[in-house]
Amino acid sequence: MKTAIGIDVGGNKISFVAFRQNKVITSNTITTPQTKELIIWALESGVKRIIQELKLPKSQIKGVGIGLPGPINNKGDLILNPPNLAMPVLSNLALAKIIEKDLSIKTKMDNDGNCFTLAEAKLGAGKNAEMVVGITLGTGIGGGIVYQGQLWRGAHGSAAEVGHTIIEREGYNCSCSSQGCWEEYASQKLFKRLRIDDPRKIKDEKKRKKVLVEFSRNLAIGLANIVNFLDPDIIVIGGGLSGLGDLILKPAQQEMRRRIISPEAKKEVKVVKAKLGEFAGAIGAALLIE
Amino acid sequence: MKTAIGIDVGGNKISFVAFRQNKVITSNTITTPQTKELIIWALESGVKRIIQELKLPKSQIKGVGIGLPGPINNKGDLILNPPNLAMPVLSNLALAKIIEKDLSIKTKMDNDGNCFTLAEAKLGAGKNAEMVVGITLGTGIGGGIVYQGQLWRGAHGSAAEVGHTIIEREGYNCSCSSQGCWEEYASQKLFKRLRIDDPRKIKDEKKRKKVLVEFSRNLAIGLANIVNFLDPDIIVIGGGLSGLGDLILKPAQQEMRRRIISPEAKKEVKVVKAKLGEFAGAIGAALLIE
Repeated sequence: MKTAIGIDVGGNKISFVAFRQNKVITSNTITTPQTKELIIWALESGVKRIIQELKLPKSQIKGVGIGLPGPINNKGDLILNPPNLAMPVLSNLALAKIIEKDLSIKTKMDNDGNCFTLAEAKLGAGKNAEMVVGITLGTGIGGGIVYQGQLWRGAHGSAAEVGHTIIEREGYNCSCSSQGCWEEYASQKLFKRLRIDDPRKIKDEKKRKKVLVEFSRNLAIGLANIVNFLDPDIIVIGGGLSGLGDLILKPAQQEMRRRIISPEAKKEVKVVKAKLGEFAGAIGAALLIE
Repeated sequence: MKTAIGIDVGGNKISFVAFRQNKVITSNTITTPQTKELIIWALESGVKRIIQELKLPKSQIKGVGIGLPGPINNKGDLILNPPNLAMPVLSNLALAKIIEKDLSIKTKMDNDGNCFTLAEAKLGAGKNAEMVVGITLGTGIGGGIVYQGQLWRGAHGSAAEVGHTIIEREGYNCSCSSQGCWEEYASQKLFKRLRIDDPRKIKDEKKRKKVLVEFSRNLAIGLANIVNFLDPDIIVIGGGLSGLGDLILKPAQQEMRRRIISPEAKKEVKVVKAKLGEFAGAIGAALLIE
């Protein structure tokens, strides 16, 4: 069986996995460099390192998949340049093409929320469900939609930008050109605005409870919107803040169900924590290579 | 070629069409009766009337399709009983089964927003587009999602309840159990709250402008949410209030594009008025019969 190499590029770190027969063979993480040239160099070195470590002959390499923050164009070959791109150094870069040419290995790329969801839908918490919506709660909110094992990328490659659906008409200005976006209310952005590092560490119990209730209610609204809009079988929640676990997921689910219109969906839709851990995005990137 | 009979059941009127080779052969409209028994009787009489009028032998009848307000269950055989159902007399009714048994004609039913969208996607403003989202602006906001000619009904039969996606966290209480739903802000519900019958008839120009601007901005937010969430090729707008035309559609499009995150979708997504007119829902119901 051939091996795929998956890479998850984040603003702070880059994760690599080698993936074969639905298993991670090896993995590692580096700090994200700050320039375009250094990022390309780091990605190519990371791929070469894995090939050396596993002593992979070229014929045994399936390809390289890359997950990136922000929308990709509809052909999947260009990182777009929206105002809020987490990594402006990557704007309008045909990253997959460059790496494919430099390394002579088939390379694909996609949005990181899409990669996360693909991994969880095929191998994680969404396994066996027909339609999975994945969301990642971190510095913002990313997302993905997988239907019958395939990513729904949208007509212009930008479906599942759930973090930028609006839940407050005249809400806080978002780093995109809109305002009142969901991620202003249910990601690190909320805690940052409240100058809170980790809500679990708030000493005043009343204040801690208040912050967690507010976060959960905001989370619930976006979850209810996903259900009322798309009616998936399951929503899988990952990203750093999913570590808050039942402190947010339990109250959010209750409030979400109150706000779902269909009695069947209200009762039956599942909301669960992701299963694949910190390498989910890199695994999903590896899965981009068929 | 066989003939399908399509019926659009609304709170005020019921529309019938006979549909053959992608054309309406005959159509008519009646006032909606107030009891369950009378509605069933009216639907069956309407079907019989069309069969007589066209002198259709049973072998030439493809089937009967019915569009209904409110969610249907995931098997498509039961009208669900959400708090906001426009026609509570129909709650938990297996309407299609009853009619199929009484008339011995294959009968199917679906949500009216789904029927509208199916018709516009196959024969109207969304023809040839891969993914079409349809919305109807009326006493509330209905919707549908058609991908590659097929309705996306959701895991529990309640996808595209776009009118009940939340655009204001602590907004007006909706007739469903939620609050801040889109339809509270961009349907007749807004005008009703402002005690306005028809915004075009407001004599004070400044006030008229203000009302139309507010409606358009609210409309834009839900449209942007559709694009950021699903990234369709086209959004088709029907329903009574679409008659306001460019008074709302032009400003709404501008505001919508400001709030779309992907540069490609921002530029390319189409928002157009429906083409099939008042019988679109009944035509879509006829199209439920393959």
